[in-house]
Amino acid sequence: MPDLKILTEAELRDCVALDAAAVACVEDCFRALATQAVAMPPILRLDIPEHNGEVDVKTAYVPGLDGFAIKISPGFFDNPKLGLASVNGLMVLLSARTGLVEAILLDNGYLTDVRTAAAGAVAAKWLSRPDARTAGIIGAGMQARMQLDALRLVRDIDSVFLWARDGEKAARCADDMRGRTGLPVTVCTAPDAVMASADIVVTTTPSPKPLIEADWLRPGQHVTAMGSDAEHKNELSPAVLARADLYVADRVSQTSVLGELHHAIAAGLVPANADLPELGQIVAGQRPGRTGPQQITVCDLTGTGVQDTAIATLAARRAGERGAGTRFTS
Amino acid sequence: MPDLKILTEAELRDCVALDAAAVACVEDCFRALATQAVAMPPILRLDIPEHNGEVDVKTAYVPGLDGFAIKISPGFFDNPKLGLASVNGLMVLLSARTGLVEAILLDNGYLTDVRTAAAGAVAAKWLSRPDARTAGIIGAGMQARMQLDALRLVRDIDSVFLWARDGEKAARCADDMRGRTGLPVTVCTAPDAVMASADIVVTTTPSPKPLIEADWLRPGQHVTAMGSDAEHKNELSPAVLARADLYVADRVSQTSVLGELHHAIAAGLVPANADLPELGQIVAGQRPGRTGPQQITVCDLTGTGVQDTAIATLAARRAGERGAGTRFTS
Repeated sequence: MPDLKILTEAELRDCVALDAAAVACVEDCFRALATQAVAMPPILRLDIPEHNGEVDVKTAYVPGLDGFAIKISPGFFDNPKLGLASVNGLMVLLSARTGLVEAILLDNGYLTDVRTAAAGAVAAKWLSRPDARTAGIIGAGMQARMQLDALRLVRDIDSVFLWARDGEKAARCADDMRGRTGLPVTVCTAPDAVMASADIVVTTTPSPKPLIEADWLRPGQHVTAMGSDAEHKNELSPAVLARADLYVADRVSQTSVLGELHHAIAAGLVPANADLPELGQIVAGQRPGRTGPQQITVCDLTGTGVQDTAIATLAARRAGERGAGTRFTS
Repeated sequence: MPDLKILTEAELRDCVALDAAAVACVEDCFRALATQAVAMPPILRLDIPEHNGEVDVKTAYVPGLDGFAIKISPGFFDNPKLGLASVNGLMVLLSARTGLVEAILLDNGYLTDVRTAAAGAVAAKWLSRPDARTAGIIGAGMQARMQLDALRLVRDIDSVFLWARDGEKAARCADDMRGRTGLPVTVCTAPDAVMASADIVVTTTPSPKPLIEADWLRPGQHVTAMGSDAEHKNELSPAVLARADLYVADRVSQTSVLGELHHAIAAGLVPANADLPELGQIVAGQRPGRTGPQQITVCDLTGTGVQDTAIATLAARRAGERGAGTRFTS
């Protein structure tokens, strides 16, 4: 009878934080994506429009790792009306040698939050100016907060400019950010004000319409768009990608279907067969990242299964070291 | 903090058996596939050739059901050398209204076995001659045994003919079948002998090359091919599909890629755009099943996510009625 470990969200929060180790873990997995024969199938997606819900299932196998994760990530956007979080889910860690379930990570989306924010840090580390000081955040959800925390792990951020559609939420988020960081946080009345002030801008919304226009880009700026992970989502005007000196995808096969790239291709501003760099290729030194202080760089993050395998492996290893979790036999 | 239920294989075996209720449950879900707006995305598949392993993830949402399952089904074919079962896995049952995880069914593949065998019963019920008495089974694994059990739920089987590549395994399987059923079971030395004797033949192998030739088909015979669920698997010679009077798929979008139909299309024996019936359409009365005692019928089963949602829903309901399982908060 197989024996497995069940880890609760509280146990996982004790084991894994958004810190330098999590950023290194996600950076390593992007490197693996460029240098190893990672198997990462297309995302399985189920839509339940009756309940304003969707589920993504992601996975990836990294040669050399003992295990691989399958991540089930439901987003049900009427949940807040019921007093529930929109995003939930869990990860299942299986042995890469036997397929046996080794651990069930009942993280309710926490590990996804960490690995998503950590990818923002990796993007900023390799693509933003080393002397970037001002952060711009578009959106006021959990990722708005965590992407700021992530930027602070790789850049010496000294002030924050924030915009979100809902002004009340933006004010609450700014308060939260001030409490988390001690930094001055300015709530802007429009996204162009964020673009006018920030060295690094991270968009963290599920917007179906572009929020950032190409005219607002300034030399030396870096933009990470992490909100779009579905065909209908779109945070950057397609012209932003055409205007940028460097566009980088987490995975071109995903961003060309689900990310900002998708809309730029549809608008005819980027050829469908363009040879575009991936973040892992830059981390691995296979392709150049930012080459000068005046360049405008854009990173398009849709979220990859390899990040889930990486963070689940880290969580399970830490839990093992601490003896955390509940053994279960089935 | 979400609250969920964990059910072990032993608890699930107590709750769900391969019986008339399981067959009705799977029959209902095939009907739903034909009559309702079921959302059933393409299967997610991850291959790990280094370890002779593969993982399928299946899901489906059926309008009206409170929940939907996501089934993780790993097959690692070197496991028997390690004293482990090849097929393992689990099902996760989520609320269709909130996406919250309601139950984790640690079935180690048991529920998949039941819903797969039950589909064989549904196919035989609607496609075989009502007076079919002799069963032919190709293969000697768990499904060989369970498909025979399933046939006995819908037809008055009085004798069994069995062939498998490995003669020792075939002998052991025949002993097992005699013990389970009390029926006479003849081990044949070649598959054509099974075809010469049986009214209903079920192929249950992972064969990469056809085992059944068209010349061997006899009027009135029904063949269910349930082994092929991947591009490279193929149990029936493509000419079998051309020769049959009626070909029925569990889901054409799957069998045309993963099932027997795939090879018949590749061989040019069935047009890629042929309008072929699905089992659910026959169950629902939308298209005719067998229309005469001399017809040769073939059913191509690749396994559908809607079966997983149906059996997981049944299991969770039964577990709720009995108070089975362990509550877990995360």
